[in-house]
Amino acid sequence: SKSKKKETLLTLQGSICSAPPRPFCRDPAPPRSVAERGISCVLQDGEVFEKAGVNVSVVFGQLSEEAARQMRSRGKVLKATEDGKLPFCAMGVSSVIHPKNPHVPTMHFNYRYFEIEEADGTKQWWFGGGTDLTPTYLNEEDAVHFHKTLKEVCDKHDLKLYPKYKKWCDDYFYIKHRDERRGIGGIFFDDMDSPSKEEVFQFVQSCAKAVVPSYVPIVKKHCHDSYTPEEKLWQQLRRGRYVEFNLVYDRGTKFGLLTPGSRIESILMSLPLTARWEYMNTPPESSKEAEILEVLRNPKDWVH
Amino acid sequence: SKSKKKETLLTLQGSICSAPPRPFCRDPAPPRSVAERGISCVLQDGEVFEKAGVNVSVVFGQLSEEAARQMRSRGKVLKATEDGKLPFCAMGVSSVIHPKNPHVPTMHFNYRYFEIEEADGTKQWWFGGGTDLTPTYLNEEDAVHFHKTLKEVCDKHDLKLYPKYKKWCDDYFYIKHRDERRGIGGIFFDDMDSPSKEEVFQFVQSCAKAVVPSYVPIVKKHCHDSYTPEEKLWQQLRRGRYVEFNLVYDRGTKFGLLTPGSRIESILMSLPLTARWEYMNTPPESSKEAEILEVLRNPKDWVH
Repeated sequence: SKSKKKETLLTLQGSICSAPPRPFCRDPAPPRSVAERGISCVLQDGEVFEKAGVNVSVVFGQLSEEAARQMRSRGKVLKATEDGKLPFCAMGVSSVIHPKNPHVPTMHFNYRYFEIEEADGTKQWWFGGGTDLTPTYLNEEDAVHFHKTLKEVCDKHDLKLYPKYKKWCDDYFYIKHRDERRGIGGIFFDDMDSPSKEEVFQFVQSCAKAVVPSYVPIVKKHCHDSYTPEEKLWQQLRRGRYVEFNLVYDRGTKFGLLTPGSRIESILMSLPLTARWEYMNTPPESSKEAEILEVLRNPKDWVH
Repeated sequence: SKSKKKETLLTLQGSICSAPPRPFCRDPAPPRSVAERGISCVLQDGEVFEKAGVNVSVVFGQLSEEAARQMRSRGKVLKATEDGKLPFCAMGVSSVIHPKNPHVPTMHFNYRYFEIEEADGTKQWWFGGGTDLTPTYLNEEDAVHFHKTLKEVCDKHDLKLYPKYKKWCDDYFYIKHRDERRGIGGIFFDDMDSPSKEEVFQFVQSCAKAVVPSYVPIVKKHCHDSYTPEEKLWQQLRRGRYVEFNLVYDRGTKFGLLTPGSRIESILMSLPLTARWEYMNTPPESSKEAEILEVLRNPKDWVH
């Protein structure tokens, strides 16, 4: 029913807009353990959405050796105490929405704050996050609307941000073994720690507020589109790629899987309800399936 | 039809029994590249099997830095040339069979030979492999038959092998983030390089020959069992776990994804045709679903 759908959207909207908590880690980290608090809201097998989840989480703990290694490998200098301990605190909001209708794209966003206490007591902090779209089929109008909404938010803070974060998004969501991106991108950034915590937090809040206007109009536009069994099948194959990216490459998922005591159901909430893998599925040239693949292989600029 | 099914089984049997090629790498490795030859046979959406593949492959190449790092992390001493090159050759046969009927378990096996040429020209070689079973529901009789067949093969070579390789299998197919094994195990080993190449090769051939008698009787016994939609759903959730193990932990898959030029369709052939992820699915106590989970959390000895 219409009112049910509206209710669903409003609930999601509410969760989405509740944004991250004020990013200061006041609680002391309990030694040698991970304390996690958070709220997960998941809608499953709904009328419009196959699976949609919004997760708010706050984690205090000690960085695992593997997690510290991964952070150092991207250039972080982390001075651990003699016994190798690195207390951290992470908090964020993340969401993945997998619609039923293959003409409604999947949307993901995640905004997070990270703080690490080094051996000498100094604290490193940074923000990261992004919003990105994964359509089963290409709809240029939707792609332009989505990117334009994100660009406007970026431009208000700094004109240099959108081009940089748009490219970062295309680079980050790269499924190397397929030579495909997960979707048509959006914005993505990490390790953002200047000019000041207040300013970066303002920017992150603006990004989070742009999620609903960037995505909900696309859902409303297509959620009643008719589709064929073949289109549903292609969607399922694309869901398989989504699973591949999340389990093989995604930094957040990897961090979660490596952190003892973290809440696995929240971490894997991002996986679709259903997915499919066929051997050697190659869409025919000039098909709608080949059209989206082309864009996933060679990312386009949707707004200038 | 019966004859079609028999044909399918015979074809699979044929492929399975064709075992690895004689394990000596005679071809020179082309510099800075990977040459791969192999045959993949995949049956998809069949009458008995949802997806079944047998893959024979021979790869010559240079170890990627990440692959060398992973090998060193499990204790290998590898002396690279000045420019960091480590020529390798790998060959093997692998197969995953995902049946349609939830009362027929998934079976996987892989037997492989690996050779690395070090900077001083010395060659390191080893064999690895195993056969393991992943049921959706527990059938003790089947579990005993499967393990007994593998134990007999091991016992003929050395009475110490089965207990060691059974435990190795339980340890290897561990999905850490779920605290579950992928299935009820079988045998698994790696880095097997003694007493001699001939003897290890003999053992590996015996293991490969045991695949059909360990598994095919179970397929025949259950492929006509009736099942409910709920049982099919539980199978799909277990398939999700199969995907999680293969993409997050499996050494072969990881090696393949890290090796530039390797054939991605062959590597990901092991993924099921369909899989499912539900948020917070916990089977009720004393259910058939809880019964298999208990065994996946606390592996049992099926034969003594």
